[in-house]
Amino acid sequence: MSRSSPAVADRLELGRHILDLADDLARWSEQSGALTCTFFSAAHRAVANQLREWFAAAGLNAGIDAAGNVVGRLPGAPPGTKTLIIGSHYDTVRNAGKYDGRLGILCGLAALESLRDARLPFAVELIAFSEEEGVRFGTPYLGSGAIAGRLDPSIMDTRDLDGFRLGDVIAAAGYDPGRVPAIARRPEDVLAYLEVHIEQGPVLLNGDLPVGVVTAIAGSIRHALTVEGVAGHAGTVPMDARHDALLAAAEIALFVERRAWAEPGLVGTVGRFGVPDGAINVIPERCELTLDVRSQDDGTAERAVADILAESEAICKRRGVRLSARELLRAKAVPCAPHLQEMFAGSIARAGLPVKRLASGAGHDAVAFDGFTDIGVLFVRCGNGGISHNPLEMVTAEDAGVAAQILRDTLVHMTD
Amino acid sequence: MSRSSPAVADRLELGRHILDLADDLARWSEQSGALTCTFFSAAHRAVANQLREWFAAAGLNAGIDAAGNVVGRLPGAPPGTKTLIIGSHYDTVRNAGKYDGRLGILCGLAALESLRDARLPFAVELIAFSEEEGVRFGTPYLGSGAIAGRLDPSIMDTRDLDGFRLGDVIAAAGYDPGRVPAIARRPEDVLAYLEVHIEQGPVLLNGDLPVGVVTAIAGSIRHALTVEGVAGHAGTVPMDARHDALLAAAEIALFVERRAWAEPGLVGTVGRFGVPDGAINVIPERCELTLDVRSQDDGTAERAVADILAESEAICKRRGVRLSARELLRAKAVPCAPHLQEMFAGSIARAGLPVKRLASGAGHDAVAFDGFTDIGVLFVRCGNGGISHNPLEMVTAEDAGVAAQILRDTLVHMTD
Repeated sequence: MSRSSPAVADRLELGRHILDLADDLARWSEQSGALTCTFFSAAHRAVANQLREWFAAAGLNAGIDAAGNVVGRLPGAPPGTKTLIIGSHYDTVRNAGKYDGRLGILCGLAALESLRDARLPFAVELIAFSEEEGVRFGTPYLGSGAIAGRLDPSIMDTRDLDGFRLGDVIAAAGYDPGRVPAIARRPEDVLAYLEVHIEQGPVLLNGDLPVGVVTAIAGSIRHALTVEGVAGHAGTVPMDARHDALLAAAEIALFVERRAWAEPGLVGTVGRFGVPDGAINVIPERCELTLDVRSQDDGTAERAVADILAESEAICKRRGVRLSARELLRAKAVPCAPHLQEMFAGSIARAGLPVKRLASGAGHDAVAFDGFTDIGVLFVRCGNGGISHNPLEMVTAEDAGVAAQILRDTLVHMTD
Repeated sequence: MSRSSPAVADRLELGRHILDLADDLARWSEQSGALTCTFFSAAHRAVANQLREWFAAAGLNAGIDAAGNVVGRLPGAPPGTKTLIIGSHYDTVRNAGKYDGRLGILCGLAALESLRDARLPFAVELIAFSEEEGVRFGTPYLGSGAIAGRLDPSIMDTRDLDGFRLGDVIAAAGYDPGRVPAIARRPEDVLAYLEVHIEQGPVLLNGDLPVGVVTAIAGSIRHALTVEGVAGHAGTVPMDARHDALLAAAEIALFVERRAWAEPGLVGTVGRFGVPDGAINVIPERCELTLDVRSQDDGTAERAVADILAESEAICKRRGVRLSARELLRAKAVPCAPHLQEMFAGSIARAGLPVKRLASGAGHDAVAFDGFTDIGVLFVRCGNGGISHNPLEMVTAEDAGVAAQILRDTLVHMTD
């Protein structure tokens, strides 16, 4: 920690206030002893109402829209100006941490509260999105997708695991699902989209940096692979007569790692891996595994996947086993606007901090605005080794304060 | 195939007869459309009765003992001579082949039928063991173990998956489980134990050889291994910050293969392998795998396992993950008696065939006689790539005939 200048003391106090609010929100959960807050559950409605109260108390014109988003508009915008949207989500995964999504809302709230009399040359909306995780209805970005006008109307007929229809769930909470299309903003009215989010990884932590500028949200290519060899008795088949599916798959997993290491920013993961019905005394006949490759550069990810599939074929051919691969997902990378990266970088530099740029490996609400408006994302250091989607998720008050101050500084220096 | 000399024609006819008998036995099964014959099922009793009839028809004094073994004694043995036991099992695994176990019984039957008037200088018993596979009661060698006096009396209280007690099952079939201890032979009365068995592997097939002399039944060392790393988001944790349990386990599996290749006759298998609850977008936290190492030389297997565990530790240390290993089994190798190997080798050479010696990677009834009497085992070529414990298990009539003739020749040349 640096010297306790008045600025540092302010920042720490601001950060403590943000973490207190996050603790407050975490009191509402669908589970006792764990934080779970999914789309339109009772806990979710309680959090929305609390956020609306806080938004109003901070001087924003606050309301909740038909998709459950809590919207707070900074009053006094010059007529006819475009709107800067600041957002993140308040829903959570099951057994979640307290900061994924909510930190960004609360940093936005702290920044706007301090700017209520600042007379910015553009309109500002802080939006707490109702849904980003895709837990209850299997589809992510329900809140931000509605604002960006990207929800297919048929989404209202989707049912959760208990059979509840999405549209009915909204209506039961007193909102009109028929009004969801009307909440979509028009791209020509929007200046940009900014989001503050916890990193959910260890890059800033390992670099000893409180915040970082996101360059892009990585694209992702996923495959399901199956290797089929020949079963045999573990005692009677000599090593040179085997066609072991597991060993080919093990080589593939290690090649994924090696190939991903070969280029900075590229990650490759074999997350599912198993020999179905394996027995201790039987040479594995079949092995099933999954591949997930991500990069902020689509070409980099595509080349890596092509190399991995080619090498997997070669491994299987050499071992006399059969490979089949099925693509499950191909999501393009979402770039952050260079001028918004520069805005964040300038604010970070003015705060006397080093400017670190990094890609986001995870998706965020910003993805819903790709092609709709310019996107800027600021990452905040994640403690405890970078763990997220876990109760151990951690942010320091100092870092939360830094993030809120940098967001404020960015708004102050922004023009329309 | 060589020229069709009268000897070859005889041998082929003999082999065809043996395979016909195996087909006959396979008609009795607990399952329709698949061969399953486990201890004291109705199918199992039917097979025993059929074997007793065939034994009697071949001129043997035949009966069924309290453990369900079918025993046939060659009449006319000189008084006071020791008994040569020829045996193998008639129970099967589920969805079995027709020759595992039964081929040895039927080769013995063919050999003894042709020797009914031969006046051998020792007594001979052909025993079709009731149980070797351990399927129904989870314990193998129930038939041969009873003959060798190695069944713990408490075995009678073991229950199968349906709750039936072993002793009750025997009693229900009309036998007296209390008489099982009395069927044990005395070591001093036994000359040796000989077994013909299908190889259940590809060594003879790949060597283009109908039969081979077994040097030993390999010992086996088994471990359960668990690797524990750190879970993480597949998108947000850079390659150099990961502690992936799967990748360490993949390296271990490949080292097992490499280490087993390094010594002839050594085999090492990772049969079970999996990431429990793995997810496509999560870095594996845990991986569970099994190790099975076999060699006819206990020291070779022990050194290999020690190397594998040491290398596994090194792999896990390098990757910052944790290894735990638990020994599940340590079964010593069972050597075949050199003079019985020589007897078989002499007979093979007299048949004009090359003498191939090989270890057995699988266990056989002979194991029950280790330390009780001298053991000799003759392997017969297994077709279809060496597959066994499978309906595709295959033996040619030619090979079955060769095996029966070699067994007969060995008996003729044996002295007490």
